[in-house]
Amino acid sequence: MKLKTANRLKNMDGGSMIDLLKATQIPEMISFAGGFPAPELFPSEEMAEVSKKILKEMPHIALQYSGAEGYLPLRKHFACRMEKKVNRRVSTEEILITCGSQQGLDFVAKAMINPGDTIICESPTYLGAINAFRAYEPSFVEIPTDEHGMILSELEKALAVCGNMKFIYVNPDFQNPSGRSWSLERRKGLIELAKKYDTLIVEDNPYGELYFQGSELPSIKSMDDGRHVIFLGTLSKILCPGYRLGWIYACEELIQIFKTIKQAADLQSSTISQIEVCAYFDAYDIESHISSIKKVYSHRKNVMIDAMKKYFPKGVTYTNPKGGLFTWVTLPENIDAAVLQTEKAIPRKVAFVPGESFYPNGKIKNNFRLNFSCMPDGKIVEGIRLLGEAITEYME
Amino acid sequence: MKLKTANRLKNMDGGSMIDLLKATQIPEMISFAGGFPAPELFPSEEMAEVSKKILKEMPHIALQYSGAEGYLPLRKHFACRMEKKVNRRVSTEEILITCGSQQGLDFVAKAMINPGDTIICESPTYLGAINAFRAYEPSFVEIPTDEHGMILSELEKALAVCGNMKFIYVNPDFQNPSGRSWSLERRKGLIELAKKYDTLIVEDNPYGELYFQGSELPSIKSMDDGRHVIFLGTLSKILCPGYRLGWIYACEELIQIFKTIKQAADLQSSTISQIEVCAYFDAYDIESHISSIKKVYSHRKNVMIDAMKKYFPKGVTYTNPKGGLFTWVTLPENIDAAVLQTEKAIPRKVAFVPGESFYPNGKIKNNFRLNFSCMPDGKIVEGIRLLGEAITEYME
Repeated sequence: MKLKTANRLKNMDGGSMIDLLKATQIPEMISFAGGFPAPELFPSEEMAEVSKKILKEMPHIALQYSGAEGYLPLRKHFACRMEKKVNRRVSTEEILITCGSQQGLDFVAKAMINPGDTIICESPTYLGAINAFRAYEPSFVEIPTDEHGMILSELEKALAVCGNMKFIYVNPDFQNPSGRSWSLERRKGLIELAKKYDTLIVEDNPYGELYFQGSELPSIKSMDDGRHVIFLGTLSKILCPGYRLGWIYACEELIQIFKTIKQAADLQSSTISQIEVCAYFDAYDIESHISSIKKVYSHRKNVMIDAMKKYFPKGVTYTNPKGGLFTWVTLPENIDAAVLQTEKAIPRKVAFVPGESFYPNGKIKNNFRLNFSCMPDGKIVEGIRLLGEAITEYME
Repeated sequence: MKLKTANRLKNMDGGSMIDLLKATQIPEMISFAGGFPAPELFPSEEMAEVSKKILKEMPHIALQYSGAEGYLPLRKHFACRMEKKVNRRVSTEEILITCGSQQGLDFVAKAMINPGDTIICESPTYLGAINAFRAYEPSFVEIPTDEHGMILSELEKALAVCGNMKFIYVNPDFQNPSGRSWSLERRKGLIELAKKYDTLIVEDNPYGELYFQGSELPSIKSMDDGRHVIFLGTLSKILCPGYRLGWIYACEELIQIFKTIKQAADLQSSTISQIEVCAYFDAYDIESHISSIKKVYSHRKNVMIDAMKKYFPKGVTYTNPKGGLFTWVTLPENIDAAVLQTEKAIPRKVAFVPGESFYPNGKIKNNFRLNFSCMPDGKIVEGIRLLGEAITEYME
């Protein structure tokens, strides 16, 4: 039989991200492609302790069904973290637990997008968001960015003309893929524009707490009047990704909608994962855990930047992020990073993510993303050396 | 600001299932409303053992990201279970791991349905499936059923006239809500019709292994030529729901599509849940665990049937299921079960699910669903006594 699938599949990218993850599994490959946190930093002994406790004390609850909105005591922890971030009271009714922030992206799109609606995003933007949104058939308007964030004059031009515009998607802290953060001024400007044009902002913020020096910049959500910003959070980068737990923080009206969507999509997130992680928050100090992660990532970022200075040829530039997991490399304009990867990098057993997938409308080909969080110094230096060799040979 | 949400939300039911779960949480409520397995039967000591082992031996893998298709050794276990069910070789490439079978329902709809397409289902049918499908804006054609399954002559009439028909959704074993199973003849007839009209069948099968006597009837998937049936499985009823693990078994072409959808929806199911459950399958005998569940449920079903015989007034009928978790009560035609619930049952602190939500096009109001799996004998008898009182008073 011939499958009569839905139109939305035509938009969805089955290949690139999955192939990428596969490339990382080839033995001896030095992969800067993933966005993996460092596994040696996972609090595995602590998680073993809480798991033992929960399965002894409350297995009948932990292994049973629970509510679509998520486990109340864990939502309290997330509400507390959000209160610190936005400097006002956050109710548990404003929090819904998701399977990672990826599910938050899917839910936002499912709640808002009719086929043909417009989404505004940074250029470049997170490819996982592009994939999640594409399932709902929007068109994307990309707004150019510089080292301070979106160019707001360009954003305003777009807002003035876009019909059926559903939300502005941003990743303001140590962006995936560029590693850049928005300046305070741009953050303020963004929220003003959202109010002026009465539009939603989706603030996807997996990396904000991983700043290497100074303190966090205020989140866009902290400048919200309560209804213009949907904030997406995740434990994947500050604790570990294996539990698949994240959250949506938004006004109660939206959380009710997301609860309906959650119920239909998968009933609820894992009860036992939620209860175990909640017990971790009760018993341990996640802030000191985050501090120890930041030290390691800051060091590895420096190792990578120093190696790029040494091994990358002239004409190649890169960001020097102040937090997060990624740096973004720009090659001379005539170079296609995907071809570089296939012809020169993979044969040398070194991998990255070619930049084209971070532009929803394609076309820009001379960037790539490097992850610095998940390997030891020696491997980072060796990988960058190989990559420098690959680029030099390709440019000749 | 006024939210400009997507059209699909108009179809989705935010209230009934969520309100229902809330009703079950009122203290002293005897709730036959949920579909909860018996928590005292969860293998909590075994899960504590495997959890300890995994967090000691492989925390760096268990707490990290993993592939969208699911953990390979667990997919092998599921493929093995499927082989026994269908009597032929099942490859791991035909299995994708989901967050419960609810996510399987969402993915099938996401892959297949354009707004306005038609879905064929049993009347009544599983309300969680109705909710999942509604997000993709299909229309539903309900086919009448009797104690042997769908009336196939009615199905054929519908197949002959339906345009844009995407799949036939069935729950052939101990159906939720009716508790009924399809006869062998109807199963054979269904697959013949699917081949004749070249259409997909979605076989949702959470209860098939929970038969109280004899042996399982062959699954629809076992009669498939490999491409006409998508089988949805789950651990929720045979192990426990708390890990949120299920699977889709379908041809490789469909599994590739579901992998793309999974990647965009939530990247992957929980790594640690998958690895822990896999270790449980490695170390323990799930078949003997299932046997012990069946004994308890069979006994509780008998207790409920005996109590209904004793306490329900004349004119009220009910199914006597040979497996699963539910029985289905039919009241005289003029009685609205939802009104009975609000006016007479809830005040007596006893709850059920009014039948109307199991009919996607509504209208039939004189049924309700009772769950018999999750409470001790005394409470079942007391609940049915109260319910008998409620019905009698309402009918007067």
